[in-house]
Amino acid sequence: MARAPSPSYSITLRIEMPNQVGIFGKIATVIGNQGGDIIAADIVRTARRMIIRDFTVNTRDEVHEREIIHAVRKIEKIRIIHVTDRTFQQHHGGKIGIHNKIPVKNRNDLSRLYTPGVARVCRAITDDIKKVYRYTIKSNSVAIVTDGSAVLGLGDIGAEAALPVMEGKAMIFREFAHIDAFPICLSTKDPDKIIQTVQAISPVFGGINLEDISSPRCFLIEAALTARLDIPVFHDDQHGTAIVVLAALMNCTKIIRKSLHALKIVIAGAGAAGTACCKLLMAVGVRHIIMCDSSGILYRGRRKNMNSVKRCLADQTNPKKIKGSVSQAIENADVFIGVSSPNIISVKDIKKMSRNPVVFALANPEPEIDPEDALPHAKILATGRSDYPNQINNMLCFPGIFRGLLDVQAYCLNDEIKLAAAKAIASVIAKSELSEDYIIPSIFDRGVVSAVASAVEDAARRTGLARRKH
Amino acid sequence: MARAPSPSYSITLRIEMPNQVGIFGKIATVIGNQGGDIIAADIVRTARRMIIRDFTVNTRDEVHEREIIHAVRKIEKIRIIHVTDRTFQQHHGGKIGIHNKIPVKNRNDLSRLYTPGVARVCRAITDDIKKVYRYTIKSNSVAIVTDGSAVLGLGDIGAEAALPVMEGKAMIFREFAHIDAFPICLSTKDPDKIIQTVQAISPVFGGINLEDISSPRCFLIEAALTARLDIPVFHDDQHGTAIVVLAALMNCTKIIRKSLHALKIVIAGAGAAGTACCKLLMAVGVRHIIMCDSSGILYRGRRKNMNSVKRCLADQTNPKKIKGSVSQAIENADVFIGVSSPNIISVKDIKKMSRNPVVFALANPEPEIDPEDALPHAKILATGRSDYPNQINNMLCFPGIFRGLLDVQAYCLNDEIKLAAAKAIASVIAKSELSEDYIIPSIFDRGVVSAVASAVEDAARRTGLARRKH
Repeated sequence: MARAPSPSYSITLRIEMPNQVGIFGKIATVIGNQGGDIIAADIVRTARRMIIRDFTVNTRDEVHEREIIHAVRKIEKIRIIHVTDRTFQQHHGGKIGIHNKIPVKNRNDLSRLYTPGVARVCRAITDDIKKVYRYTIKSNSVAIVTDGSAVLGLGDIGAEAALPVMEGKAMIFREFAHIDAFPICLSTKDPDKIIQTVQAISPVFGGINLEDISSPRCFLIEAALTARLDIPVFHDDQHGTAIVVLAALMNCTKIIRKSLHALKIVIAGAGAAGTACCKLLMAVGVRHIIMCDSSGILYRGRRKNMNSVKRCLADQTNPKKIKGSVSQAIENADVFIGVSSPNIISVKDIKKMSRNPVVFALANPEPEIDPEDALPHAKILATGRSDYPNQINNMLCFPGIFRGLLDVQAYCLNDEIKLAAAKAIASVIAKSELSEDYIIPSIFDRGVVSAVASAVEDAARRTGLARRKH
Repeated sequence: MARAPSPSYSITLRIEMPNQVGIFGKIATVIGNQGGDIIAADIVRTARRMIIRDFTVNTRDEVHEREIIHAVRKIEKIRIIHVTDRTFQQHHGGKIGIHNKIPVKNRNDLSRLYTPGVARVCRAITDDIKKVYRYTIKSNSVAIVTDGSAVLGLGDIGAEAALPVMEGKAMIFREFAHIDAFPICLSTKDPDKIIQTVQAISPVFGGINLEDISSPRCFLIEAALTARLDIPVFHDDQHGTAIVVLAALMNCTKIIRKSLHALKIVIAGAGAAGTACCKLLMAVGVRHIIMCDSSGILYRGRRKNMNSVKRCLADQTNPKKIKGSVSQAIENADVFIGVSSPNIISVKDIKKMSRNPVVFALANPEPEIDPEDALPHAKILATGRSDYPNQINNMLCFPGIFRGLLDVQAYCLNDEIKLAAAKAIASVIAKSELSEDYIIPSIFDRGVVSAVASAVEDAARRTGLARRKH
């Protein structure tokens, strides 16, 4: 799949050029011939004979950036003053900050917000610890916790290198759900130390978003924290994905007119996302699930490449104890959910599925099958990508689910809440609007967050997980 | 000391009253007779016969608030609709928040700030970990870490109740030094767990401000973290106080015309602040120090109420092995520094000091001696209070010192940096302006932060503690 120039690889070349007819066209032609997409050519300064312009160019990748710079540099009579990369530029000094909600301009302000006035607020919380929600940021704050062990497609890059991602996530929390999320990138990968650290810092937060922690460590960490803390702990890579997949699947069933419970589903990938998808689907009553990992189908008694979580999944899925590869699992399946690695299924595999096959090829950025190949054969195709219809993206879930959890000051979360969130996401698309290309709302559909938040609030109250009753 | 009504105890009474001559005066008189200070009486709504007004009243304390409400309630023909307390109101929902420095409005924004664009920034940091300072909030972020064990005068109130103070401190960091400080209130008081937790979360921060951790645990925690981390760790209760005390003392010596080295100094209080004052004064060459705690003078070989830190201080101070009470220590002293508890010295004690006695009575809110009693006898008096001259307040130090440390991306801090900060604070007052009532600048003097920051930068560079060389 040849990539198109994109704003993630946008560079700005500041070029000094003679004020002559033809030079501008020359530069534009060179950039165009290299495949660069000029999106602006702003004048910075003009002198009598010279002019300085900023050419902003979308490119395909870093190699392409360098090719374009190299080609422009060879044009006679002009000079590249400097090149800036917009992505790096925007990350400079970090992307989030702390602000004061009220001014601290004089002694009166200070005497209320800090000493001595603050002492009264402290005492009020000492007398009734629930008031920490009323008088502090706990009411609206989420810790985005990672150990940097499974970041995007980059793998184990560590705490520091993971920070730009967590800041980006904090931005999404702020922009889409008005939540104050703070990145906590840990210098340890020891599950016990992670658990202890998160427990230690928990008083400040109303919820914990675990993020990009590798499997199977993530299961243990989440379970231990859920048991120890009285605030919700949500591993987004697991449940965010599972909830959005379930939402999409709910809408698929309306199109293919099959019942959710009766679907035969193959899940490729037994990591965080695959495991959570499987568990949530089982929780809503799906009975025919076959899980696959890089060693093929999971079945009870398999010895190779197992761990306790996979053993547990093997016991609960694949009742016919089918063995073999993904290709064998997929025969007669209604739905394929890929949360694994690029190019593991083929058109031939889709052809083996039942009528109206549903293919969720969610590996990022390279799906389990090239969308161009899959499109003619799948009744419904969804990917994790923004350049095809039906983008399965956790952004549809995590801002709204935390908004709802914070609003009721939830103690934790359960399957009812996850199911409510999935239903809410699915419901944003009216039945009349539903189509093969529109089973899931856009991440920019602002109706999603409020729908999810409100469904989560109801579910939390109904199941007794809300501190705040009304 | 009878307190005056203050804005920390400000209430607003919303009162419905008949639109008649004399009623307003009646209400104002009742409030005034009770000792309340009316600072506003805004009209909320008027009808034909009735008028609703908000009376904002400064009171002395919560008891006084209730007295005033009770007295107003007895006035005939009027009705109190509700009463709000401004301090509590301003704490509602917390006082700080996270904001995005750049917008996330569309897919292009998202593709640069989050996936896929952010992956390039992650890789740049993986390749060169120092770049975490360039592309993340680490460059400007400080963790305000507490276990809630020694908060203000309130003592061990725990993590949740400490949070309003830490948020207040974060506000000061933001307002005075443009620093993004985030409160980390810990649910553990175990020094080992505190050390491990702070170490684990350190990748996100450019500096650690330890706060309100009880002594002597604070010494161990700070020392261990300093040894383990490659960012500065600064226990403000210790060094913030010590630096501002040293700054004030430097200016005192110019007035009383004595050399700093030759001063005979008595320090009352051997907790965090007293210990740090003693150490910093020794570091700048003061030789005549006597430390006292609640059991009297510290001397080598004392058995009662000791710990390893006090033993170390006892070994290095009080060369004549004087024993006894604070009153005995203070004989012929040039300077008394109290960082202990209310009313432990008397006018008689001040009279025993040498000529031109300098008295820093810093216990808060009740000093070691009533300032009214001390003023006629001390040549120079300083307190922690804002209602007397010479307020010794850590706010003069911590915003500037962290600004400087962050700006050079410091590895840690040392005595040279502390001394430079003290000198910078002292230097903000020109020699011609110096007087007994003006030895230390106001906390609202905006020149202080930049003076301290720039001195700290120089000292950090000079002593090899700066990552950023220019």
